[in-house]
Amino acid sequence: MTGTLLLLGAMTGQAGKPAATSPSLEDGAALLAGQALASDGAWRKLATLCDTIGNRICGSPELARAVTWGAETLRADGLQVTLEPVQVPRWVRGEERVELVAPMARPLHALALGGSVGTGPGGIEADVIVVASFEELAARAGEATGKLVLFDVPWENYGQAVQFRSRGAAAAAAVGAVGALVRSPTPVSLSTPHTGAMNYPEGSPRIPAVALALEDSAMLRRLAERGGNPRVRLTLGAEDRGQVTSHNVVGEVRGREHPEQIVILSGHLDSWDVGQGAQDDGAGCVAAMEAGRLLAALPVPPRRSVRVILYVNEENGLSGGRAYAEAHAAEAQSIVAAIEADTGSGPPLGFSFDLRNPATGEADPEAGARAVAALQPLVHLLRSSGAVTLTVGGSGSDISPLVELGVPGLGLSQDTSGYWPIHHTAADTLDKVDPVLLARNTAALAVMGWVLAEAEAPLPRATALAP
Amino acid sequence: MTGTLLLLGAMTGQAGKPAATSPSLEDGAALLAGQALASDGAWRKLATLCDTIGNRICGSPELARAVTWGAETLRADGLQVTLEPVQVPRWVRGEERVELVAPMARPLHALALGGSVGTGPGGIEADVIVVASFEELAARAGEATGKLVLFDVPWENYGQAVQFRSRGAAAAAAVGAVGALVRSPTPVSLSTPHTGAMNYPEGSPRIPAVALALEDSAMLRRLAERGGNPRVRLTLGAEDRGQVTSHNVVGEVRGREHPEQIVILSGHLDSWDVGQGAQDDGAGCVAAMEAGRLLAALPVPPRRSVRVILYVNEENGLSGGRAYAEAHAAEAQSIVAAIEADTGSGPPLGFSFDLRNPATGEADPEAGARAVAALQPLVHLLRSSGAVTLTVGGSGSDISPLVELGVPGLGLSQDTSGYWPIHHTAADTLDKVDPVLLARNTAALAVMGWVLAEAEAPLPRATALAP
Repeated sequence: MTGTLLLLGAMTGQAGKPAATSPSLEDGAALLAGQALASDGAWRKLATLCDTIGNRICGSPELARAVTWGAETLRADGLQVTLEPVQVPRWVRGEERVELVAPMARPLHALALGGSVGTGPGGIEADVIVVASFEELAARAGEATGKLVLFDVPWENYGQAVQFRSRGAAAAAAVGAVGALVRSPTPVSLSTPHTGAMNYPEGSPRIPAVALALEDSAMLRRLAERGGNPRVRLTLGAEDRGQVTSHNVVGEVRGREHPEQIVILSGHLDSWDVGQGAQDDGAGCVAAMEAGRLLAALPVPPRRSVRVILYVNEENGLSGGRAYAEAHAAEAQSIVAAIEADTGSGPPLGFSFDLRNPATGEADPEAGARAVAALQPLVHLLRSSGAVTLTVGGSGSDISPLVELGVPGLGLSQDTSGYWPIHHTAADTLDKVDPVLLARNTAALAVMGWVLAEAEAPLPRATALAP
Repeated sequence: MTGTLLLLGAMTGQAGKPAATSPSLEDGAALLAGQALASDGAWRKLATLCDTIGNRICGSPELARAVTWGAETLRADGLQVTLEPVQVPRWVRGEERVELVAPMARPLHALALGGSVGTGPGGIEADVIVVASFEELAARAGEATGKLVLFDVPWENYGQAVQFRSRGAAAAAAVGAVGALVRSPTPVSLSTPHTGAMNYPEGSPRIPAVALALEDSAMLRRLAERGGNPRVRLTLGAEDRGQVTSHNVVGEVRGREHPEQIVILSGHLDSWDVGQGAQDDGAGCVAAMEAGRLLAALPVPPRRSVRVILYVNEENGLSGGRAYAEAHAAEAQSIVAAIEADTGSGPPLGFSFDLRNPATGEADPEAGARAVAALQPLVHLLRSSGAVTLTVGGSGSDISPLVELGVPGLGLSQDTSGYWPIHHTAADTLDKVDPVLLARNTAALAVMGWVLAEAEAPLPRATALAP
């Protein structure tokens, strides 16, 4: 033990008792990366979360258990833990059945979208009109009355494909449809429907909304093109049970010099109600937690405080991120940076910086570029994780309310090619997570957290840090 | 028209009227391959089969409709069609539900194996013992009494993995288990269970057998290793409804010189009761049918007869293949070769030759090598399809009863990397079939059928052709 301390720093203190000093930025980064890459700590946390709790939609008993587990784990790892209350929706899927009833009868592979209304036990049945864009729906609006509108839109990327999931029901309701079907936003499928959030704008009729597996969506298109006049029955038990109280889990490693200055490492603890929420976002949570453990175990704390935040309600409302920003608005000027990991556990590529003008909430790409430029000389410290590419762009959903207050936001960039086919599906399970890649993501967060918390000067931002 | 005929052969006949002659082996192969590769005929057939009939398990109304469709299509394409009766099992899945009940409750993604008994509406519930081999089960036999045995065996290849599906229930029953669970035999999964055939040996207790998605199988293993003592409930509506009459569909292009000598092109029309049976074996059927159409459309028929056979009951009994061999045993010595396509619609690679001694039914690799050697000089005719590699090995399930009678069997070899993850699943759908590759498979069958039917000497076999 003494040997380790000697190795890490110079001896100081009284009466010959060695007192630890902080390692150099380089040595600390090497130590943290080396520990993260050699450890299966994040993986073991994820296995516990997935296999003893499982998926954890907002308001579920499983999310409550996950909050308790997150708090206990962070505490055991040496962080000071607080639970911050958040009101979250309690949407329950219930039993559901989606069937083609004409021109032939067959079950369809589908999941109601999160937030969708149910149909009542009698279900609804209607002919299907198949469109490939909002524009096509507008052009064929006259055909949609009383029908189910299927948005069968081939995948280009997530941002493009997800629009139909989010806004499809509203667009369909606006032209008199009785329900919306959307092709699951994914490039690859093994008859795998993808759930996810949808919204009813104020005043919009609330019609049921369902994601179909790519295969079934493609089949309905072919049937329609063949003149087969497909007809579908939806029986959805979905139910909105109002709001319940949940909690963001916050664990802190208090800084040694500027404890009031804070670096946030985060993910979100809630998931959809299928699969295990292993990559979305169990992986982000455990990488942040494990990075927090390693930072808490340093011989002396970093210069600034590090907070690990496990948000709730990223998937269907973002109330966790909003509640945190609201409760901590007064200290937003002291939050040096907020980092979020929420795109799975593929190979880490780098960090994407989102800096905004706190007066307007608008992106400030020049400020982003200055932040990137300030860190660029230190990017070699991230080499062992692979996360070496710093870019200006978005960051993370949960931290976006903080980012709008002027907090520099960093999103962990990852190779997402293996992520989109499984996220929000029954296949988002532990077996898809490579322990080696998870350790590399942990290393990326630990090193970036360390650099931001330890570097002499804080990260440049759109407007200066509070004095 | 006249121009085409002139191009294809010399003018003969009386009164200046051009009479068609057979093209050379080379020209015929080029013509057939060129037509197959430029046509979407096989694809359109497959779309009709998949989208207007769908999956078609033995004994279902869908298989009856597929038989009628197959016969009508072959007839419309110029073949002489007969329906040959076959007794097939009528196994019905019914409603089913497979659930983890402890240490936590969650639905499992599962399909009863074809032929499994049901559980009655009350279901059965038992603790799970997880094994990785038959040997491990034998070693832990004492633990299995009254339990569900899960064979969680990682994929090496189909032949290795499928044993546990076929024989797992018998092995589990032999040590007193009340049911068998098997990890779906696949290298890749998106929470996708694979059904398939299983057998109860004479005298074996008939316990329910279920395939789990890879994800759920892996989770049960992890729970067991964690000491979580997983407990599963099976509620299976599966039911054996005895035997019903179906039909092999046989379409013939009658040979011009040796009509009694026959070359068979085949696939199987039945499928499992999930997905669309697009690759297993819709693709093989339509490739054989389209090759038959092209051969029937030649200016003059080939020297020998070509029969397109759409077998029934490959999936759960092989009674179609057996019935055909039995009914045609007397002419087995005149069947020059039987070709089957039944491994999907990946890139065609070549043909695998299975020649057997009719006295013993044993493989005769020397005879296989002679057959390969006889065709090797003509392999360039297959180049445009890509099916240029001739090997000695297996052929096809449905033709195996003929092969045991001494008929040379040829299996169309294909790249199966995209096949195993989808066959026997809800994801075996039309969208997975590449029209260009389907056309190449059609070309391979058409050219090989042509070569075997037209070449002056018949293919060498283990014992000589009947005079």
